[in-house]
Amino acid sequence: MQGNTVTIDDIRAAATRIAPYVHRTPVMSSRLINAEAGCDIYFKCENLQKVGAFKARGAHNAVLCLAPEQLARGVATHSSGNHAAALALAASHFNVPAYIVMPENAPASKVAAVRAYGGEITFCESTQAARESTLEALCARTGASFIPPYDHPDVIAGQGTAALELVEQIDPAPDFLIAPVGGGGLLAGCAVASKALLPGTLVIGAEPAGADDAMRSFRTGQWQPQLAPDTVADGLRTALGQLNFRLIQQHVDDILSADDLAIIRATRLVWTRMKLIVEPSAAVGLAVVLSHPQRFAGKRVAIVFSGGNVDIDRLPW
Amino acid sequence: MQGNTVTIDDIRAAATRIAPYVHRTPVMSSRLINAEAGCDIYFKCENLQKVGAFKARGAHNAVLCLAPEQLARGVATHSSGNHAAALALAASHFNVPAYIVMPENAPASKVAAVRAYGGEITFCESTQAARESTLEALCARTGASFIPPYDHPDVIAGQGTAALELVEQIDPAPDFLIAPVGGGGLLAGCAVASKALLPGTLVIGAEPAGADDAMRSFRTGQWQPQLAPDTVADGLRTALGQLNFRLIQQHVDDILSADDLAIIRATRLVWTRMKLIVEPSAAVGLAVVLSHPQRFAGKRVAIVFSGGNVDIDRLPW
Repeated sequence: MQGNTVTIDDIRAAATRIAPYVHRTPVMSSRLINAEAGCDIYFKCENLQKVGAFKARGAHNAVLCLAPEQLARGVATHSSGNHAAALALAASHFNVPAYIVMPENAPASKVAAVRAYGGEITFCESTQAARESTLEALCARTGASFIPPYDHPDVIAGQGTAALELVEQIDPAPDFLIAPVGGGGLLAGCAVASKALLPGTLVIGAEPAGADDAMRSFRTGQWQPQLAPDTVADGLRTALGQLNFRLIQQHVDDILSADDLAIIRATRLVWTRMKLIVEPSAAVGLAVVLSHPQRFAGKRVAIVFSGGNVDIDRLPW
Repeated sequence: MQGNTVTIDDIRAAATRIAPYVHRTPVMSSRLINAEAGCDIYFKCENLQKVGAFKARGAHNAVLCLAPEQLARGVATHSSGNHAAALALAASHFNVPAYIVMPENAPASKVAAVRAYGGEITFCESTQAARESTLEALCARTGASFIPPYDHPDVIAGQGTAALELVEQIDPAPDFLIAPVGGGGLLAGCAVASKALLPGTLVIGAEPAGADDAMRSFRTGQWQPQLAPDTVADGLRTALGQLNFRLIQQHVDDILSADDLAIIRATRLVWTRMKLIVEPSAAVGLAVVLSHPQRFAGKRVAIVFSGGNVDIDRLPW
């Protein structure tokens, strides 16, 4: 990592670093979904990744980039989602604590997931201010290193390893590579990797119409806040990170959105046709393809399934 | 095929025959499920097979074994499940009709699946007599060949190709190979393949406690009827086939059962830990392992996931 950016060399180094701890996930296709979409789609199955999401990549890379004396004091984050579970798993390999700040109203299933991986949870009020002050006090007390969920070069480099694998797994090169965008770590990392290795492949961000701050930021050229996000794709309600936005401006060709009806339809298609559980956030790439058929007709399209963590007692339909 | 039995040579020939039409499905594992089960499990993912079930193997082999003049007149079966969809798909490769007799009260999702693969449905009353007489009349009128769902050597040889692949995909050899048993085609075919190639591997049938005719038949040495089956594993409510029973007697080491609570628990474990959709019938192998922990403790266990066709609007829990 050279300063506050991410390069293909950072992503290659991350891949070597995390290889013993994460899965090289498979790429799968479905004849029936291809027929429905009118193009050839190659799905990178990060729903089959450790902790059920690509977040395992960034969390492991960030933990492995810490100096030994830092690592010994543990790591910390505020997150109620996949990053918290991923950080807890990463810390567990080195027998150091992972302190997770969670809002007191976090769903029981998410609390259980973080605990299952050994995370030490500190509950706080459900406000951004409470989360930040609780995390700050916790880091000051314990000396733990804060590992943010997406706006950090080591995290972005780790997420980019998904695309590094993907371009090796598809031959010939795809015309498009699509990744969902919430905080932007996955899209930024994948865009850096893809553009370095396959300059002719167009990189597209896929965003829910109900949380389209990245699309608005990309199109106006100015970082735009996430205002009252409203989408079934709960993993993509977060605001776009600043470093992520700069990398996306440099390496991404376009950001397209899909509405919740299309996201639900895409999620159900994957469940029924591919027998794979993806969370709605993971199906936004397919939803974008199905919502913009002319753009992708007859093309080879690589799509990242970001994760598969769904509460199967509360399905999103 | 030599007479009314199935040999490893039949299964090898079937594998060559069907290779262009079916998937070589992956074998997957889950560290979390292994920890819960106390053994190392290798899941053969036939839920990722064409039409979402191993039935694609037997149906394609049976169709490909027909003489050209027979094939030209089409194929027929009575089934409301995966075999009907598989037969429709197999027939579609050769542009010949697949006549499917279904009870008039068959679930809409199953009717739609058969239609999606091009099957021509004839509805009949929901009795065994009506199904048989309707099928007989249909075959007489069209000249189509009846392809039964399990009690047929070509079908059994096709299903056995799942184990042929599985033993190549696991090294060293597993201590156990477990397949669910309903009509018995999958278990019989897998047992023939496994015993020929890995004589030291114990072959176990997995059956719902609420439909345990195969276990009763195996233990008494006499074919027993399926009386009022009552289980969530709807694919395993069928009666054990006669040829299947003879092959199971020769090549299977034991049949174990699991109750519906264990089957549901196993199904949910696969969904949540592996992000794979399996139908309850497919999870009976894992349910048996979890229900008999001493028997499998510390062992290497291969389990066939038979299929993933679930109505996602009517989950089994």
